[in-house]
Amino acid sequence: MAVGQSIPRVDAFAKVTGEAKYTADLVPANAYVAKIVRAPVASGWVRGFDLTEAQAVPGVVRIFTCFDVPDIQFPTAGHPWSTVPSHQDICDRKLLNAHIRVWGDEIAVVVARDRISAERAARLVKADIEVLPALSTPDEAMAPGAPCLHEEKPGNVVVHSQFHLGDGTFDEAAATPGAVVVSGHYSVPAVQHCHMEPVHSFAYMEGQKITVVSSTQIPHIVRRVCGQALGIPWSRVRVIKPYMGGGFGNKQDVLVEPLAAWLTTQLGGHAVNIELSREEVLGCTRTRHAFDWDVQAVASPDGTLLARTYCAKSNQGGYASHGHAIAANAANVFKQCYRDRVSLDSESYTVYTNRPTAGAMRGYGIPQGCFITEALTDDLAYALGMDPLEFRLKNCVQAGYVDPHNGITMHAYGLDQVLEKGRAAIDWDAKRRLYQNQTGDRRRGVGMALFTYKSNVYPISLETASCRMMLHEDGRVTVQMGATEIGQGADTVFTQMAAESIGLPVDAIDIQSVQDTDVSPFDTGAYASRQTYVSGMACKMTGESLRGKILDYAAGMLERSAEGLTITDGQIVDETGQTVLTVADVGMESCYSLTNSRHLTAEETYHCEQNTFATGACFAEIEVDLALGQIHVLRLVNVHDSGRLINPKLAEAQVHGGMSMGLGYALSEEMLFDDACKPLNANLLDYKIPTAMDTPKLEALFVEVDDPTGPYGNKALGEPPAIPVAPAIRNALLHATGVSVHSLPLTPQKLIEHFRAAGLLGGEDHV
Amino acid sequence: MAVGQSIPRVDAFAKVTGEAKYTADLVPANAYVAKIVRAPVASGWVRGFDLTEAQAVPGVVRIFTCFDVPDIQFPTAGHPWSTVPSHQDICDRKLLNAHIRVWGDEIAVVVARDRISAERAARLVKADIEVLPALSTPDEAMAPGAPCLHEEKPGNVVVHSQFHLGDGTFDEAAATPGAVVVSGHYSVPAVQHCHMEPVHSFAYMEGQKITVVSSTQIPHIVRRVCGQALGIPWSRVRVIKPYMGGGFGNKQDVLVEPLAAWLTTQLGGHAVNIELSREEVLGCTRTRHAFDWDVQAVASPDGTLLARTYCAKSNQGGYASHGHAIAANAANVFKQCYRDRVSLDSESYTVYTNRPTAGAMRGYGIPQGCFITEALTDDLAYALGMDPLEFRLKNCVQAGYVDPHNGITMHAYGLDQVLEKGRAAIDWDAKRRLYQNQTGDRRRGVGMALFTYKSNVYPISLETASCRMMLHEDGRVTVQMGATEIGQGADTVFTQMAAESIGLPVDAIDIQSVQDTDVSPFDTGAYASRQTYVSGMACKMTGESLRGKILDYAAGMLERSAEGLTITDGQIVDETGQTVLTVADVGMESCYSLTNSRHLTAEETYHCEQNTFATGACFAEIEVDLALGQIHVLRLVNVHDSGRLINPKLAEAQVHGGMSMGLGYALSEEMLFDDACKPLNANLLDYKIPTAMDTPKLEALFVEVDDPTGPYGNKALGEPPAIPVAPAIRNALLHATGVSVHSLPLTPQKLIEHFRAAGLLGGEDHV
Repeated sequence: MAVGQSIPRVDAFAKVTGEAKYTADLVPANAYVAKIVRAPVASGWVRGFDLTEAQAVPGVVRIFTCFDVPDIQFPTAGHPWSTVPSHQDICDRKLLNAHIRVWGDEIAVVVARDRISAERAARLVKADIEVLPALSTPDEAMAPGAPCLHEEKPGNVVVHSQFHLGDGTFDEAAATPGAVVVSGHYSVPAVQHCHMEPVHSFAYMEGQKITVVSSTQIPHIVRRVCGQALGIPWSRVRVIKPYMGGGFGNKQDVLVEPLAAWLTTQLGGHAVNIELSREEVLGCTRTRHAFDWDVQAVASPDGTLLARTYCAKSNQGGYASHGHAIAANAANVFKQCYRDRVSLDSESYTVYTNRPTAGAMRGYGIPQGCFITEALTDDLAYALGMDPLEFRLKNCVQAGYVDPHNGITMHAYGLDQVLEKGRAAIDWDAKRRLYQNQTGDRRRGVGMALFTYKSNVYPISLETASCRMMLHEDGRVTVQMGATEIGQGADTVFTQMAAESIGLPVDAIDIQSVQDTDVSPFDTGAYASRQTYVSGMACKMTGESLRGKILDYAAGMLERSAEGLTITDGQIVDETGQTVLTVADVGMESCYSLTNSRHLTAEETYHCEQNTFATGACFAEIEVDLALGQIHVLRLVNVHDSGRLINPKLAEAQVHGGMSMGLGYALSEEMLFDDACKPLNANLLDYKIPTAMDTPKLEALFVEVDDPTGPYGNKALGEPPAIPVAPAIRNALLHATGVSVHSLPLTPQKLIEHFRAAGLLGGEDHV
Repeated sequence: MAVGQSIPRVDAFAKVTGEAKYTADLVPANAYVAKIVRAPVASGWVRGFDLTEAQAVPGVVRIFTCFDVPDIQFPTAGHPWSTVPSHQDICDRKLLNAHIRVWGDEIAVVVARDRISAERAARLVKADIEVLPALSTPDEAMAPGAPCLHEEKPGNVVVHSQFHLGDGTFDEAAATPGAVVVSGHYSVPAVQHCHMEPVHSFAYMEGQKITVVSSTQIPHIVRRVCGQALGIPWSRVRVIKPYMGGGFGNKQDVLVEPLAAWLTTQLGGHAVNIELSREEVLGCTRTRHAFDWDVQAVASPDGTLLARTYCAKSNQGGYASHGHAIAANAANVFKQCYRDRVSLDSESYTVYTNRPTAGAMRGYGIPQGCFITEALTDDLAYALGMDPLEFRLKNCVQAGYVDPHNGITMHAYGLDQVLEKGRAAIDWDAKRRLYQNQTGDRRRGVGMALFTYKSNVYPISLETASCRMMLHEDGRVTVQMGATEIGQGADTVFTQMAAESIGLPVDAIDIQSVQDTDVSPFDTGAYASRQTYVSGMACKMTGESLRGKILDYAAGMLERSAEGLTITDGQIVDETGQTVLTVADVGMESCYSLTNSRHLTAEETYHCEQNTFATGACFAEIEVDLALGQIHVLRLVNVHDSGRLINPKLAEAQVHGGMSMGLGYALSEEMLFDDACKPLNANLLDYKIPTAMDTPKLEALFVEVDDPTGPYGNKALGEPPAIPVAPAIRNALLHATGVSVHSLPLTPQKLIEHFRAAGLLGGEDHV
């Protein structure tokens, strides 16, 4: 059995030895360097340029401004194309923009023979800019008289949506005798992905073909968006995705590829390289959406959840990118985690502002939604005087849950086991008792948060994936996925599935880590935790198809029927258990038979019309230093129900990575801006991600309930680990101190203010 | 109709603009440079090395000698693998060899950080060599007591073969009353391919995978030979073939790829680059075989060919490479061109010597065989006092000819039309009369030669080819061939076939010029003029398969049956001739349908068990300057029967290139050696290929007789144009002067000797 084993990553050796080729390793030596000239304001209009000094810099090849680019608006979100125009992404930007909507907006680009010349000339480009007021928040942007960012959206609201579930109303529920109501305003800030490898693409031409080599999660979507942006047939663009150092959703946006593709067309097909600096990546690509919520919840005295209302404002920044899809997904957490017996009202606004454009980031709205849901849930349990875990067990969704809007079904149910496993692991009941009624400067608490997460985007959007396999003369098989390895271990998991489905040892599988849209099977890419579930099924189907062809060919060699033949560990075995041939025998003969050569390959598409929920929870134990306003995380335990694990060690590593992101989201990460929307900490010195020193032992536990819809009983695990950590720590803080903090991150500054307001620091100023 | 049109080469733009990436364009900037240390003698044993000085050169990384390499012997010929051991190529060399068999034999290799250091250190490697006598000719090598080059072949004969055809004997035929007999010793020298791009490969590793990027005609065979040479599973090697600047058979040998592959395994997977210098390519790779023949022919007085005997000695050089296959093929010309009414006796020896290893070169023995056959034919006609064209018409093979040994059949017959078309074009009858009985220092003549040529290697060896196609969203199709574009225009021809078979305009086809053995369809490669005939059929089959899938999908979209739907110029047309959808509609829907996405690709293998003969002739008109011993070619007309032409302009260009090679073979090209087998002219200053100044207007004419076995009525055209030129010029010389020269090239030195011997120069020395 290849599936279920903790084999080492298939790319481990190539990566640790430096043999793996990343985009930066593939840039031709003579490539031109393109440096983007960025707006020094967040809102305004470029009225003209003075390029005299910039053009005089030796080494400059050409300078292009926002007045030179095609008058074509295009989208950047990494969504599958839709043939239905109303479902297509918003086309609200050009390659370079005269209308400045974000600080650092792309207004011109210098192409030079080397980086130094390009950067020097970019600094010397003089833009005449009419500055407009910058809008920081949805409220400012929705205020009457606010400047309009995109004329197609007067009032700056990208989309407003709402739904009502249940037969009653919140007010009816609140009228229940003894009902406990909580309400409040909650918020989360914009944060950044901080992938290790920067945003990097280069492009060149051969004949009519524009090749874009890019560190992207979504090569097939990049090809389409480049085609749209340049106004050319999509397959005139070829996208190659090499090894990657992470993306986390930022590379599920099409960031610099269309500009690179266009530049090479303007420069005789010469290679043009665009590698963003760390500062550009942090300040000028995409962020996780900041959200503001006004919410309320009511429960009956026995802790039965009756009703909630939810009003979200999602800060979109200057361009639509993934837009309202994030707010819509965030709203799902309310209904998909708990049962409101009376009603649930949800309203969401996604609003353009002059903050950096928000896009996809691990969890796609759910980390935000989970923070508010789980904070609200704990605040309600606290008001009820009820154990928050007991409250959850009483009110969370049950086996067989079906989302009333889209029909997504919880085919397998492990949430109850998840909660019990976490309860035991953190010693919940004893700790909850132990940490009651603490006094003193250092107080401890335990908290938890749960989540549910769907395993792909069906039926909201298309789910499709293809795979191709080829048998070689030595019995080894190459596997081509359209799905992408971006650092998460996808290639290892597909290798195991391919081996399992054909009947080969895993070391007989050669997976192609590089996608090339000209020849790789079609797939929409790495997002929505979809690949193991959706693309994995394409892999399994293709492996089974290839196995059938191998057995058919073997039967021909043996002059018998294929019925009764199987493949085990590379051996072809008959009904009696006897090895009658090897797969290598078939590989050799199929290529070199003088009477019947037939190259054995298989290719299958999985059109996926299934979805299912993964679930999980985080349990945190913390110690709070009241005087320093500091949270020390003592233990952090994630428990996941992601169905059957294809590779337990890899699953554990995936959980560790997500927990680390959750820890930063909880305690330290936030993008800071001045009033003019200029980023203040767009670098890794001032933007605080957790270091090894900040990180406790990360504990990952699993509940393996086979899901009948996954290729091998598996379901989503990619994004989930990042989701529940921040609210679990926030809820542990509530337990330790009784202080309900309504926003992230839980910085010392913020905590000191709360502790002072709560009287925990006495009259003295501890600072 | 895409087939039959003279569309421009699909790679023309990329090549003339320099956008096309050749092997040299892809070498990583930090690649190590490997410089081969070559033996300064042609025969001997390396007893040891002193590497002290070489290792002290700054920049040297490692030096490997013949004592360091794996003790594995491997072959280098670009033949398909055979699962039958007796049909496998001779394994007679290691990566580096202590037993020196050729001048410049690879005895060590220096790996350095740069070319200068590598070359400097290579010059400082000191080898202790025991020198043996060098054997120049088969006669020397077959003499008793000659040193043995390979212990597996005592006596140095690689293979000796013979056959007899006919019911009688030569002596019986010669006893015919009035019979005319001619006999003689004829010979051709070794020549070199002189491809524009040198031999060049580099290799690197990612994990367990060794990637070899190489300018090769035969990527799948290179992979196999690298696997053999390194003793590893073949698919651990991945071969990538970029754009290429020619090969002409030299790159149908596996020359430096195994060494590059092995070196990277010894250097932690670091890229290692081996680019041979022009001098190494000319002196130390492969040559066209030199041949010696003793032959005789007899005809009845009316010009009926009765019998011939043929004894060939093929000078193999130091290693087997393609070995006896060349001599065997050369012997075919006798039987496949003319009908001996009484008997034909053939005997061939392929013999190891210490000359450079001979391998495949355009025509694979047939240019040599055609020279001797056609020289002998003209000498016989001359002796008979008969017009040599009339003699040929009387004795050449007829429609329906079947080779008695292998059953290859002349399915379509255009030889008669070829001869008549050439006769008319050169104004044969008038010129033959006009140039009779000339006197003076400048004399003119017309001569001709014919040939037949099979269209692939079946049934001597395996013929198999695969193709894959993929439909994109915009209705364009990428085509992946295992067959290789090496400069000859294969990609253009396949593009036309793909367009024709699917029903698309040619500009909707994107052919992939780069082969990658990990993912490209399987094919044995560019040789034997096979690709248009064999691989073209795979292309056609795949196109028809894809067309069927497109129509099926379209039928689903239209909710009707596919019966009656066709594709014309990218439009899907129904029974009434109405356009009902476009292929682009299907492409888009098949990728993005929310209910039925199914990525449309097709992949087919053509297992070829067909062959057929192409034919042709060259007609030459020359003027001979007796005093200077110089031949001026006034007109050169090739007429070809290659079945239907896929692209007439490309066919014409192919013929022009072949004629140019034939011209050099006729007049100036030969490799020269000293007695110790050291090359004397292994550079393009001293080795004389024709320049534009040496080249007359090249005239290409065609007879298009559809062949029922070719994919579109087509048959071999790749090698044939080079075949008949040299004997046609040689025969024109006979016509002009009455001098029968028995060897090539027809240099001034040689001609002066012949003219003096024939008394044409009088008693004076003109020099």
